Order: sequence, then C-alpha cells, then structure tokens
Amino acid sequence: MRVSVLGCGRWGTFMAWYTNKIGHDVMLWGRETSKSFAGLKETRKNEYLSLPDTIKLCSSLDKSISFAELIIISISAQELRSFAKQLNSIKESQNKTFILCMKGLEASSGTRLSQVFSEELGRNVNVAVWVGPGHVQEYVNNIPNCMVIGSENVDITKKIVQEFNSDLIRFYYGQDLIGNEIGAATKNVIGIAAGMLDGLNYSSLKGSLMARGTREISRLVRVMGGNELTIYGLSHLGDYEATLFSIHSNNRKFGQSYVEGERFGKLAEGVSTIKALKEISRQYEVELPICNALYEILFENKDAKATLENLFLRPVKFEFQN
Amino acid sequence: MRVSVLGCGRWGTFMAWYTNKIGHDVMLWGRETSKSFAGLKETRKNEYLSLPDTIKLCSSLDKSISFAELIIISISAQELRSFAKQLNSIKESQNKTFILCMKGLEASSGTRLSQVFSEELGRNVNVAVWVGPGHVQEYVNNIPNCMVIGSENVDITKKIVQEFNSDLIRFYYGQDLIGNEIGAATKNVIGIAAGMLDGLNYSSLKGSLMARGTREISRLVRVMGGNELTIYGLSHLGDYEATLFSIHSNNRKFGQSYVEGERFGKLAEGVSTIKALKEISRQYEVELPICNALYEILFENKDAKATLENLFLRPVKFEFQN
Repeated sequence: MRVSVLGCGRWGTFMAWYTNKIGHDVMLWGRETSKSFAGLKETRKNEYLSLPDTIKLCSSLDKSISFAELIIISISAQELRSFAKQLNSIKESQNKTFILCMKGLEASSGTRLSQVFSEELGRNVNVAVWVGPGHVQEYVNNIPNCMVIGSENVDITKKIVQEFNSDLIRFYYGQDLIGNEIGAATKNVIGIAAGMLDGLNYSSLKGSLMARGTREISRLVRVMGGNELTIYGLSHLGDYEATLFSIHSNNRKFGQSYVEGERFGKLAEGVSTIKALKEISRQYEVELPICNALYEILFENKDAKATLENLFLRPVKFEFQN
Repeated sequence: MRVSVLGCGRWGTFMAWYTNKIGHDVMLWGRETSKSFAGLKETRKNEYLSLPDTIKLCSSLDKSISFAELIIISISAQELRSFAKQLNSIKESQNKTFILCMKGLEASSGTRLSQVFSEELGRNVNVAVWVGPGHVQEYVNNIPNCMVIGSENVDITKKIVQEFNSDLIRFYYGQDLIGNEIGAATKNVIGIAAGMLDGLNYSSLKGSLMARGTREISRLVRVMGGNELTIYGLSHLGDYEATLFSIHSNNRKFGQSYVEGERFGKLAEGVSTIKALKEISRQYEVELPICNALYEILFENKDAKATLENLFLRPVKFEFQN
C-alpha cells in the first residue's frame, strides 16, 4: 500500500523507515526549509537511521497527499492546526485516512489533536492516532515493543493495524480515543515531573509519582467522558518506562535539566501540554495537583524542590479519597 | 512508646533503626543462631547501617513480646506460620498490636500473611501491615518516601501511623487490606518478570509489563473481594520504581540472573509468591497470564525468552477485553 509520512523529525523519519521496511511504498514529506529534510536529501540518513533508496523524499504537500491512501502526520503538536488548514486547502485530502503520531494537546485551548484536525478538515476524513511506548533508538536496533492505534471507527483502526503490524511493533486496537489521546499527551508531563525528581535526588519518589500520576489523569479522563482504565494501559502507564525511566526521554531530561539549572535544547512537548492542562482543568473543573505544581514551577517561578516536596511529602491521609 | 522488632535482616534492622530515630524505645530480636544477629551483637552494624546503643538487642522472644505494645515482624514470609505458633504459646502476645512488614503469601496455600497470623493467634491480637516503596539504602541516606499502613481497624491504622510517621517516611492509611497485601506480595513477581526482560535485552517491554501486570493483579484483587484500584496505589504500582527499575531490587536481580544462567544468592520472595499465585488462581478461577508464565519458566523449565515473547509479542487484539 502507498503511505505518505508528513514530517521528517525523529519519529516521522522512523515511521517512513518502518512502513517501508514492512513492505509499503513510502513517500516522506518535509518542508523545503527544514534542516532535517535538507540533511535527509543530502545523506539519506539522520542520527538514528539510514533511509533506503526506495523511500521517496518530497517537499510538495500536494504530491504527498495524492500519492497515498494512508497519511501519517508527525509534526510539532502546536503546529497541527495551521498545518491542518493547509491540508484542508488541498482537495485530495478529502476521503483520505490520516494517522496522527504526536503526543500533545493544543496549548491555548486544551483541544485534543484529533479534534483540532477534524475541526479544520471536517468529517470527510478519517482520523486515527498512533500512540504508546517505544524508542526510535531501540526499534532501529530491532528491539520490539507494543503500541496502540485508535480512532472513532473500529474498522479504520483494524485496517491500519492490519497494514502496520509486524514482529517489531505489535499493535493493539485502541478502545477509547479520549483516554488514548489524553493519556499519550499527559505522560510527557509526568515525564517532566520524573526528571525533576531525578534532578533533586528524589528518584525513588517516582514510585509515588506513578501511583498518583495515573490516578490524577485517570480521574480527568473520566470527567472528560473517556474510560478511566485507559490510563493504566499502553498509551499512558505503558509508556512510563520510556518516559520516566529511559535515558532517551526528552521530557524526563528536560525536567532534570530544569532543576539543575541547565538549558535543554530539544523540544519537550510536555511543556505545552502543561499549559493545555491548565485550561482543561478550568473547563472541566477538575483538580490536577501534579500538573498544576508543574505549571507553577515552570510558569510562575515557584521553587521546584519546595513545590514537589509539598506535593509528595505532605502530612498523612487516606490514599484514595475520591 | 516501646516498640519491639522481631527479625534482624535488612528490613527488620532498618525498622529498629528508624523507630529509634523517631523517638521510640526499641528492642530488636533475633535468633541466637542467626548470623545477622551475631554480627549486630558484635559490631552493632550491618552492611546498611549502624545501630545506636539505645537499641536493645535481645534473643528472648518472651522478653521482646512483654517489652512493647507495638511489635513489628520482619522475617521470611514462609516462616510466618511456625513463628506465629511460637508467639501464640507466649501468653503476653494477646492484646498486643503486631505489624507485619513482609511482602509475601504462604506458598502452599496462597493465604495472605495477616490471615496466616490471625489463624494462629486468634482474634484478640491486632494485626496490621506495613507495605509500599522505599529502599533501606536510600532511607539511611535520608532520602524520604511514602509508605502504607493497613489493617481491618482504621483506629489501629491511625494509631500506628501517628506513632511511626516522620519527615523520612510519610505514611498513608491503607483502605483495603486484601488489595494492600496482594499488591505488596505480587509486585515482587512483576519484579522478577522485569528482571527477566532486562536480562533478555527487552527492558523497553517493561512499559507493557507495567500496564498488563497492574491489570492482571487488579482483576485478581477484585475477584478476591478487594478494591481493584488499590493495585494502582502505593502498595503495588507505587512500588514498581523500587522493584522493576532499581539496582537494589532482589527480585529484579533474581529474574535477570535467572535468564543469564547465573545463580543469585539472596532471597527472592517473589519465587514463593509465584507458587502461592498458582494456588490462588485455581481457588478463585482467575487467569493470571504473567504469573503463570513465570511459574512455567521457573518450575516447569519452559524457555524464558520464548515464553515472554509469546506473552508480550502475541498477535494483535483489543487492549481491554475483560
């Protein structure tokens, strides 16, 4: 089958590599001005992998859309709305199936990415999400993992899984789009908290963080209309190894650098998600103590050590109060 | 308050050190024949800590029981029944409060430790459990954590927490004794599985393991009459950092050594718990795929790699099927 991948960062390039590897005819799109795209055109590799010659590199969005039936999108979550507007101006976008491979929420509004996408492209396109654990660094070394494809249409979900499943990535059918998207986005926030605990020499409090983080997000998902158990599945808890413990996790490293007073160069999508959660917390009138503590640390200049100690080492109480 | 600690292994000795540190009058009991006890008598220290002179060392069980109102027990879980019989022959055991600091189940019967204890000592004694995350190695370096005290009587729970709470250990009130005990015991089993994944270079599957392990045990707790959410709290998921990721975890190290074909010298309580779970699975007619896979690996000589691959990398399906 023909597959286009829009976005040629770490994950987009990996997805082109992966879908090609399992037998699809793949086109990888990047902006003409993108440094990553220029690098791939010149050397056909990045710091993680080399692309076989069978993968087409293309900077025309029109061509990339008309090329394929399945279109994977992997760009910065905060750019999705303007990108979706661009896609909407391309007539052939209608009736295609788009798969969003991003873990974020629109910072200004708290909107889930599949909603952002549908708001801009209308209901004639199929939208699915691809979330769950796994590191590019490990997949390219042939270390397998399990991931999740979810959408509002189980036939679309099954079709994508059928096309993309392999011994390297075992896909599960997502059963709760709200839970999968909120879960995938917020695990980055818990990852930032984990990094801060690491940086403060409180790594062993990551146990408490896992118990309380899942509970906090699970309650949120329930209030938003999703299934609270989803948070304890692959899209959130199942991604904690990769996010809270791995040396590869950008969000964890961001949190650690932050409390150590160092600048961290790479994108930590969790920072935008923290802003989005502030808005969601207001909209749904849900208290999110961990997310809110991170907001105060990052955006209101509160002291990280005191704020996290207050959060995790407060006086006794019942563990489950609501 | 006067506190006796029965058992002078790593945790028992720590508990004596800790309760003394926060102001209690402490007696630490060990068998005259115990190597740990002999070492403590001679040097007043072990590989983790030094005991202040104010802690009394005693090898008379009678004296240790009469000395205190609160009695902490930290011995091998599989020896609890015979030890409890011994305590039952001491008249002063009646009306005391015993706190079990062990994470296990009776291997032959699957019985929870508080049940084993009550079966032997009757209903005139108060029994509580002390579970949750934390490493001795970190506590003695003043790194705080959160733990759980649980019992069937919330006043007893509160009284113990009031006596034992400090800036170093923040205690929560346990609200589900079944869930807390099953959760604490089974986290060791998940820890063994984690170690095997580490040893097979499948560490990144520990994300899936966390999602599926919590779900498996949570279903079990529900069937046994406990609250399934307890498993996502401190006594189980909250102990995953310490058990699935830490270099200090005996159970994780046991699993890793096992698949690497090395002998692991120390006690891995999870091995007995795997036997107990086989029995519980039969009693309650609950399928426990992860626990059962470990049973097959350890006791039926199945190949670890093939068995775990079959468990985690099976063909696609819905994530939540029951």
